[in-house]
Amino acid sequence: MAELHFLNKVQPPQVTSLNLPPNHSCNLVAKRKIEVRPNDLPILQPDGVLTSICSPRICGSDLHNYLAGGVGGRPVKYPIVMGHESSGEVVAVGDLVKSHKIGDRVAIEPGLPCRRCINCKEGKVNICLDMRYCGAPGSVGSLSRYFALPADMAPHIPEHVTWDEAGCIQPLAVGVQIGKRVDLRPHKTLAIFGCGPIGLITAAVAHAYSARKIIAFDNNPTRVEFAKKYISPLTGKPIIDHVFLIGELPTESLKIQPNGLAHKLAEDGSGAGIGDGEINDHEDHEETLGDRKWEQAKKVAAEYAEIAGLLDEEGVDRVVEATGAEDCMLLGIAIAKQGGNYLAVGLSHIQTNNFPTLAVTNKEINVMGITRYTASCFPSALDMLSRGVVDLKQLITKTFPLTKSTDAFEAVAAGGDMKVIVKNQEGFDN
Amino acid sequence: MAELHFLNKVQPPQVTSLNLPPNHSCNLVAKRKIEVRPNDLPILQPDGVLTSICSPRICGSDLHNYLAGGVGGRPVKYPIVMGHESSGEVVAVGDLVKSHKIGDRVAIEPGLPCRRCINCKEGKVNICLDMRYCGAPGSVGSLSRYFALPADMAPHIPEHVTWDEAGCIQPLAVGVQIGKRVDLRPHKTLAIFGCGPIGLITAAVAHAYSARKIIAFDNNPTRVEFAKKYISPLTGKPIIDHVFLIGELPTESLKIQPNGLAHKLAEDGSGAGIGDGEINDHEDHEETLGDRKWEQAKKVAAEYAEIAGLLDEEGVDRVVEATGAEDCMLLGIAIAKQGGNYLAVGLSHIQTNNFPTLAVTNKEINVMGITRYTASCFPSALDMLSRGVVDLKQLITKTFPLTKSTDAFEAVAAGGDMKVIVKNQEGFDN
Amino acid sequence: MAELHFLNKVQPPQVTSLNLPPNHSCNLVAKRKIEVRPNDLPILQPDGVLTSICSPRICGSDLHNYLAGGVGGRPVKYPIVMGHESSGEVVAVGDLVKSHKIGDRVAIEPGLPCRRCINCKEGKVNICLDMRYCGAPGSVGSLSRYFALPADMAPHIPEHVTWDEAGCIQPLAVGVQIGKRVDLRPHKTLAIFGCGPIGLITAAVAHAYSARKIIAFDNNPTRVEFAKKYISPLTGKPIIDHVFLIGELPTESLKIQPNGLAHKLAEDGSGAGIGDGEINDHEDHEETLGDRKWEQAKKVAAEYAEIAGLLDEEGVDRVVEATGAEDCMLLGIAIAKQGGNYLAVGLSHIQTNNFPTLAVTNKEINVMGITRYTASCFPSALDMLSRGVVDLKQLITKTFPLTKSTDAFEAVAAGGDMKVIVKNQEGFDN
Amino acid sequence: MAELHFLNKVQPPQVTSLNLPPNHSCNLVAKRKIEVRPNDLPILQPDGVLTSICSPRICGSDLHNYLAGGVGGRPVKYPIVMGHESSGEVVAVGDLVKSHKIGDRVAIEPGLPCRRCINCKEGKVNICLDMRYCGAPGSVGSLSRYFALPADMAPHIPEHVTWDEAGCIQPLAVGVQIGKRVDLRPHKTLAIFGCGPIGLITAAVAHAYSARKIIAFDNNPTRVEFAKKYISPLTGKPIIDHVFLIGELPTESLKIQPNGLAHKLAEDGSGAGIGDGEINDHEDHEETLGDRKWEQAKKVAAEYAEIAGLLDEEGVDRVVEATGAEDCMLLGIAIAKQGGNYLAVGLSHIQTNNFPTLAVTNKEINVMGITRYTASCFPSALDMLSRGVVDLKQLITKTFPLTKSTDAFEAVAAGGDMKVIVKNQEGFDN
Repeated sequence: MAELHFLNKVQPPQVTSLNLPPNHSCNLVAKRKIEVRPNDLPILQPDGVLTSICSPRICGSDLHNYLAGGVGGRPVKYPIVMGHESSGEVVAVGDLVKSHKIGDRVAIEPGLPCRRCINCKEGKVNICLDMRYCGAPGSVGSLSRYFALPADMAPHIPEHVTWDEAGCIQPLAVGVQIGKRVDLRPHKTLAIFGCGPIGLITAAVAHAYSARKIIAFDNNPTRVEFAKKYISPLTGKPIIDHVFLIGELPTESLKIQPNGLAHKLAEDGSGAGIGDGEINDHEDHEETLGDRKWEQAKKVAAEYAEIAGLLDEEGVDRVVEATGAEDCMLLGIAIAKQGGNYLAVGLSHIQTNNFPTLAVTNKEINVMGITRYTASCFPSALDMLSRGVVDLKQLITKTFPLTKSTDAFEAVAAGGDMKVIVKNQEGFDN
Repeated sequence: MAELHFLNKVQPPQVTSLNLPPNHSCNLVAKRKIEVRPNDLPILQPDGVLTSICSPRICGSDLHNYLAGGVGGRPVKYPIVMGHESSGEVVAVGDLVKSHKIGDRVAIEPGLPCRRCINCKEGKVNICLDMRYCGAPGSVGSLSRYFALPADMAPHIPEHVTWDEAGCIQPLAVGVQIGKRVDLRPHKTLAIFGCGPIGLITAAVAHAYSARKIIAFDNNPTRVEFAKKYISPLTGKPIIDHVFLIGELPTESLKIQPNGLAHKLAEDGSGAGIGDGEINDHEDHEETLGDRKWEQAKKVAAEYAEIAGLLDEEGVDRVVEATGAEDCMLLGIAIAKQGGNYLAVGLSHIQTNNFPTLAVTNKEINVMGITRYTASCFPSALDMLSRGVVDLKQLITKTFPLTKSTDAFEAVAAGGDMKVIVKNQEGFDN
Repeated sequence: MAELHFLNKVQPPQVTSLNLPPNHSCNLVAKRKIEVRPNDLPILQPDGVLTSICSPRICGSDLHNYLAGGVGGRPVKYPIVMGHESSGEVVAVGDLVKSHKIGDRVAIEPGLPCRRCINCKEGKVNICLDMRYCGAPGSVGSLSRYFALPADMAPHIPEHVTWDEAGCIQPLAVGVQIGKRVDLRPHKTLAIFGCGPIGLITAAVAHAYSARKIIAFDNNPTRVEFAKKYISPLTGKPIIDHVFLIGELPTESLKIQPNGLAHKLAEDGSGAGIGDGEINDHEDHEETLGDRKWEQAKKVAAEYAEIAGLLDEEGVDRVVEATGAEDCMLLGIAIAKQGGNYLAVGLSHIQTNNFPTLAVTNKEINVMGITRYTASCFPSALDMLSRGVVDLKQLITKTFPLTKSTDAFEAVAAGGDMKVIVKNQEGFDN
Repeated sequence: MAELHFLNKVQPPQVTSLNLPPNHSCNLVAKRKIEVRPNDLPILQPDGVLTSICSPRICGSDLHNYLAGGVGGRPVKYPIVMGHESSGEVVAVGDLVKSHKIGDRVAIEPGLPCRRCINCKEGKVNICLDMRYCGAPGSVGSLSRYFALPADMAPHIPEHVTWDEAGCIQPLAVGVQIGKRVDLRPHKTLAIFGCGPIGLITAAVAHAYSARKIIAFDNNPTRVEFAKKYISPLTGKPIIDHVFLIGELPTESLKIQPNGLAHKLAEDGSGAGIGDGEINDHEDHEETLGDRKWEQAKKVAAEYAEIAGLLDEEGVDRVVEATGAEDCMLLGIAIAKQGGNYLAVGLSHIQTNNFPTLAVTNKEINVMGITRYTASCFPSALDMLSRGVVDLKQLITKTFPLTKSTDAFEAVAAGGDMKVIVKNQEGFDN
């Protein structure tokens, strides 16, 4: 039923009368090949607004499409207009819309749920069964000059929030959804794997929500240093209590525990015992590579937990795994408390990993996936920016005009920059 | 603080005056070697009851201790009194106890939480940080003639429930906890992997709770046939709508999808799209063994879903994996709906498995562990037996006297029998 | 944005070509005055279906509109087409609809949420901020021959469910929503005030969901007798464990407790103690009428609880108040356990009542309102009818053709009948 | 089973060897009559600590016992040692305790749940069925020099938290529980009725938890001014966005709405419609006093909501009623959004009030009671003080030595002071 979003096929007079310039867009035409060229102007619908786009940010999944021609196991179909993080100014308003007027500054929610499937009607719009998502196959991204969407998907940007911050609202909305999914509560402790934009924004959201202690991990020394200096607008001090630089897990067997720490943290600690589950294999077996890495992960996690002062309480309450790397998954489950929540945010091209399934059972961990964001995430993100409890400006490290989109993508690909913003209305004559 | 459960070290007069016979117990003294011999009589505490044990059942984890000397990665320390599923008759009552009297028939809750750790005080007694669990290292099991426990851990057995049924209350209490953890709700569909006692009891509980449709899987034809004939006391018809006999997953690559079903079910279906998570690997890669099995699992799961009439709604709402086998884990995640719940009940000696982590993220699955049961599970199990909405009698296939404990364990090991009951008070002269 | 539901103003060819007979409808034109006359045929929308209505049921709120010209403080605007409980057969299908075809039997969800407000997008469609509800002011009811609605609001009726049962699906859907709001869980006890259709359906739903014990109250002997004979299709025994005929609460002071029962149940029982809330009045005071009735209510409730075997556990887990009468409210809070849930379903013209607010605080009761139903309620109701776990046929006591609508309303007003069904397609020549 | 807390009747040697001075305590012997005299030293239990008390705070319910001889409908039995908010220093440690040592600074959790009833075991220790609560009938308060309690009820006070702040931890713990019960979430709006200590602490907690907007009401101009100047340690700005001075509700009829605001907010707003509940009264009726006040409350609430910028979103998400006054109850329900939560914290001697029950149903409000605090509230309160996100020092307005307890109570009774602290170890020679 997503077709209902595009029911009118004719541009209404309030748009045609504007005589807008060509709708230059960033088209990905092949792997690592972009063409900025005019595309059709999207049709304004009766319940929609037409916006002139400002300051979209390039996201990790955009980059993945750019470099690898797909993300999360889903290949793109060329050509595709990229981009799904942006904000804009309203230039025309649909006939039924009373909430918006020309000139309004709005954020762009990139996902267009069908509003009719059972998931939509139960509030799980992020797993809509007929989703149209900006820049996904069959849809149009927002790395273009103009973009049309339903008015309720274009929440107003508070006055004192800058365009550049507004362009980063989508990852902040994702941070809000991460908070919902992993159940970020006041007084809880949090471990984050990955100090990229999503990792840091997760930390910022958790801090705003009164997390008790936040620790983070990355294997990139630049990111680790950046994370250590990410400052809270509320306390003036670093948001993350401990940032750890981590390497690869060793793979040799660890039959003899070199210290007792792991026992304190691990699932064979005092809290566990006899499960009541079913057992199907009765035989002894060779220790697998995964099992060896898991034993190492428990040892390493216990060491980090002790440094962070979290060993006595047997680990952390919440884990956000934002790398998609197997070693981080193992460390994440190892450092989670019994009954803790572990959120699997990171994506990789590999579908399966050596995952410590037995510990998930024994420690009664909740392992949760996450897709996109739900209805109140954008308003909540705007609320945080408006109240000044989260600071995104520290994360914006470079800007490019739309005409230099390729440079922008290559800058993200180079990996040194935290967040890269494109100025959609710059670089043109009109 | 679990020591508080055993504060009094002297047997009170109401016990000594009874002149009870020796406390014969089933001691595991080595792998697959049992000695039935008298052990010390447990001390009755002021808040406790002393019970004469009847009809304990032998559980999968008992069997694992018996055969492999440990369960879930935790080795036993010999000798150990086995058993954690039983019921009994009260023979003496502690000084502070008003709720019980001599002759009362009671169920035995085998777990003794400390009542003082933060998990206990928040109602998560199953993950108590200082748990004493029947038959676990450092504790005493209930395969003995007498057993002492706090009165609040000995709920009364309704009049018309037989001793044999009562002996199976513990797995039914685990079934109740499975229902809580996986959130068995009316109108939801359920897939169960493993048709042993826990699998069938899970089905019975889900049926009593008004599940819409239940399907189950096993690789043992005898169990599959047994499951097909497990009849509801409410409808007189089989509890499980479809029972499937499954084999091992193929391991060859499945680059070309042989049918379109998998797309309907799988995470690359219509509902998914671009995640907003982080991506860390940019390179192409070889398809791993795990990934190949995962592709096969999606295909196979779609085929089963179609037969069960569940493909149109894109899978099942709830999955209970009660085997601990990797293939079942893959099938379980494959057949789960977007946003569905998957409960990891099955235990194995292998700590890690090839697990479809990317699908967990993309489909927003909730993967949950489980340990033991919580406070209301035993009363709820007794309630179900009392109302007659669950029938355990069909599952009891053999009984042995306590003196024949070895035979009982070997019968369970042989695998043909569903549930084996030991008669603790039989085989003795007094 | 509810206007989007009626975007197309021209009847599409698939409807005009049908040459349907006039759309006779039951118009309320004044208090207690009905005219059955042809109204305009509703326009079929691209996402909709046009249905020929069968067997609508007359509901309590219809009756209220009929007798009192409004319900719940909201007056109707004459003329209005009445009715919001029905089922029908699809006679035409919108251009975008793939889920339905001509001849399909469907239930009619009477509420049309806007799908765009924040409540809708968070899954709370029942409190949509721009709801269009059948038969409410500004909308059109379903007591007519034809009715158009979005296809996703017309769930299919399983083959073996009769038209008459299908016509009662709406109150069953409300029963499902009652179950959600009051959190009907397996093993919980339930007290229902009011043995009308909603009360009995609530009992039936709770029974299907494995409630442990159900008790009910009414002041009408006929309804009490009817309730005692409402039989479970699962057990063949009465659904409600105890049905009590109640009178008005006495209003004299009860300074001296005539028995100790009330103390067991009431908020000054053992469980309560010093609250930590604020206190603003320091003076002694006269005992109010409300306070005297409340003391009486505690005494009476304790007596009923003892008869029902619920005094030892200090009351019931869940209360559904379906009368709107003050005495029942007082009894309902009195009989609720500490921490229990109380759902306020009943409506009256009086806006405020003497309500035991102090007990709500001290006993930590959850008092909850309820409006309509949410997205999965109709499918869940159909599921229950399909599985045969709820029996509505016992509740249908009379049927009338559409042309005799006034007789139907007067029959409901007379109060003797449980459920009255109108046959929309009967009484016409074509 | 609460007797188990006092199992040992003999003081252990580690206490007798201390030769402590007499245990002077504040005994309430009659209404408004206090005697400070030595009471028995409490017995140290094996799982307990004996503390020397510092800085207890006098609470509203203490005051109520002092002035009126009871609180919330529960009379005291004279003599009684008062006090339930305090902190202290450990002077002796029970034999089984490893978590504490002499000299430790600890908070005193005043409630002693039985740990064995079903509520305790399900984590609802605040509604324990056999609770012993400091200063409640049958128990001993903490307005004494020495106090004994289980070690797990004496959480450690972080180093940089002062004794005076620590003495206010109990109301902060109650604030944490208020947050749990009313579900204080980030981004939600909150209205608080009552600007006494509990009202202000609720605001402080909500602010720390990232509430979007907080408004508050009181009828006392001094409290209103105090509330306006209660400053956030995070932003340096007032915590409460709008503080309103309110008077009594008018009682005349309001048949003609003088403005349209009320319609926007009230339950007859756009969101409501036809409920599906039962209706029992069919007749017209006189408008009651309660109904007239309710109509006035809707009008007044809409006016305040408009000033606070909350009318467009149709009210507030959360209401905390901390006065126990009927007018505030009416305003609280009126200003709550559809689907909003309303927490009834305030206590009064009147048991019943005119409560807008119809609006609770129509607006689908959740009205919730609250008793005491749950297990993690004290640790969470200490966490907030430790991180400096809540500032209690602003609320402490006067201190008295224990020997001047009567003066302290009279100061609280005079009402001008926000929080009054007693110094238990001052005023003595030894």
